[in-house]
Amino acid sequence: MKIAVDAMGGDYAPEEVVKGAVMAAKEYGTEIILVGPQERIEGELAKYDCSGANIEIVDTDEYLVEGEHPAYALRQKRKASILVATKLVKEGKADAVVGAGPTGGVVGSALQVLGTVEGIARPVAGGAFLGFAPNTIMMDLGGNVDCRPDQLLDFAIVGTVFARKMLNIQNPTVALLSVGAEEGKGNEVVRESYSLFQRSGLNFIGNVEGHDIPSGRANVIICDGFVGNILVKFCESLGKTICRWLEDKVKGKLPESDVKEIIDNLLLATNVADAIGGGPLWAVNGVACVAHGRSQSDEIAKTIGQAKLAVELDLVGSLKAELAAARSRLNMPNI
Amino acid sequence: MKIAVDAMGGDYAPEEVVKGAVMAAKEYGTEIILVGPQERIEGELAKYDCSGANIEIVDTDEYLVEGEHPAYALRQKRKASILVATKLVKEGKADAVVGAGPTGGVVGSALQVLGTVEGIARPVAGGAFLGFAPNTIMMDLGGNVDCRPDQLLDFAIVGTVFARKMLNIQNPTVALLSVGAEEGKGNEVVRESYSLFQRSGLNFIGNVEGHDIPSGRANVIICDGFVGNILVKFCESLGKTICRWLEDKVKGKLPESDVKEIIDNLLLATNVADAIGGGPLWAVNGVACVAHGRSQSDEIAKTIGQAKLAVELDLVGSLKAELAAARSRLNMPNI
Repeated sequence: MKIAVDAMGGDYAPEEVVKGAVMAAKEYGTEIILVGPQERIEGELAKYDCSGANIEIVDTDEYLVEGEHPAYALRQKRKASILVATKLVKEGKADAVVGAGPTGGVVGSALQVLGTVEGIARPVAGGAFLGFAPNTIMMDLGGNVDCRPDQLLDFAIVGTVFARKMLNIQNPTVALLSVGAEEGKGNEVVRESYSLFQRSGLNFIGNVEGHDIPSGRANVIICDGFVGNILVKFCESLGKTICRWLEDKVKGKLPESDVKEIIDNLLLATNVADAIGGGPLWAVNGVACVAHGRSQSDEIAKTIGQAKLAVELDLVGSLKAELAAARSRLNMPNI
Repeated sequence: MKIAVDAMGGDYAPEEVVKGAVMAAKEYGTEIILVGPQERIEGELAKYDCSGANIEIVDTDEYLVEGEHPAYALRQKRKASILVATKLVKEGKADAVVGAGPTGGVVGSALQVLGTVEGIARPVAGGAFLGFAPNTIMMDLGGNVDCRPDQLLDFAIVGTVFARKMLNIQNPTVALLSVGAEEGKGNEVVRESYSLFQRSGLNFIGNVEGHDIPSGRANVIICDGFVGNILVKFCESLGKTICRWLEDKVKGKLPESDVKEIIDNLLLATNVADAIGGGPLWAVNGVACVAHGRSQSDEIAKTIGQAKLAVELDLVGSLKAELAAARSRLNMPNI
């Protein structure tokens, strides 16, 4: 398996990206194609013992930087490293692409070069949300801010494949996030989605409320990207706020190692994206994984691991099959 | 000042309601009118030393119970205690009404009997959201699930009056809750609301994101009741989940009193509605306060205190004046 990595992506590129790529090549035995300025990459590679690591370089001098408008930059820089790396997937020269940002550049390249699976217009972001509910994923967590019921259903299908493949839950429960448990509770889109979900053949258990998220009442919780983005950012920020407050309260009263363990675990549980280190852009017609811009080598290696898993599990093929099946059950055209 | 209290409202009525009313009558020196079955109320009053407490009873045998459909029940039970209590306000025999549930019954009575201030169709729920950000209130936290821009602006005006009167902030900052700081970020309603807010004469500082809520970046954060309800319930539940986890982690390692202090404070900070004990239904044309259904005497007394404050501060009059001023600035009819 070959994974193309944008060597110039993220806040600590190319240093941490190259380091993470070497780690992943050794740990997972994947072949890595580093895309970026050849000399700089070679300079970084020279720092490590690369024996047993199968790494090649595809040379390009252009790359995106934080702060540019991604769509504009991608039009100007046709040889940008993330674009070149994504094209390797399209051309069959790599099985997956990994980039650490700017996020808009990774998403834009994936959309331009690979496109989305039929019938879904934009990538879907989602995943585990809280360490306290490890078997619960939420979708969408960004990007799709105004959604129709059929889009929410697409997210539910994506989430079902996610839970089945990545969490190994055979028949994941699916719920709509709303303001009351009963059918008829919710905003217009949620109310309209309810019966569509009931007829979808998914394991739909109805609505869940905000207080049900930490308790893991459903495996797949569906909301639009507006609600999802606000929730995930609030959760991360509240977690950090509580950690600061708590550290102050227990400092000097508990051994330092105990304080560190409590704070680290609470941060991980409330900042899950950091813990996982990035994952696939769902609904892209190919495996494209995005890592946090502030990723260090560890997170880069973990994201490469996620990309490898996504290829091995044939996430894209499974998603297409599941979408076709649900649409056929609903007598919807498989666009 | 006279405050009418539904003696039969809430999970622990009439026992805890009567007890809380006696506490409030003594502590705040307000006259209390307890509405409900006279004999049961007298039986409860007999348990306490009521000297110095100015309490009268308005007798009625009917009352709402949890689980009934509130609108239906209010049609059937025309002498329901909450309805009778609310009418005392309408007739000028009381200055405010307090009820502890069912919430739908308190809201329904307020709407039927007192109505809302001109131009606002439904009561607005809101208030302090997080103990970590005591000078930040959010609106709407329920009820108004699909909102137009002009409704969000009404919430912002309500919130401004709230922050000015109840938090004593002279020129409260107002923000829209969204998924990006820049104008143009957000769902359709938020994007459309932005310029309306800019022209409103309120102290509008733009969009804030989910991660800005705990940091207190704005005094008044505006969202529709769908987002608000999900956020507040998530926050309360996450707070409880973290408390359970944390108690387990530190038990036996810290003195019991320290553990209790940490857990109690963290619960209060994340479950602010419990801490405050209820407050006014905003935008009702009169002072109607709702307490949690599970309120004990303490919360009942606190809610009566909130009602007294709302009357003293003339919240309803201030809100009407502020609405008229904002509409005039925007050349909107003061309906």
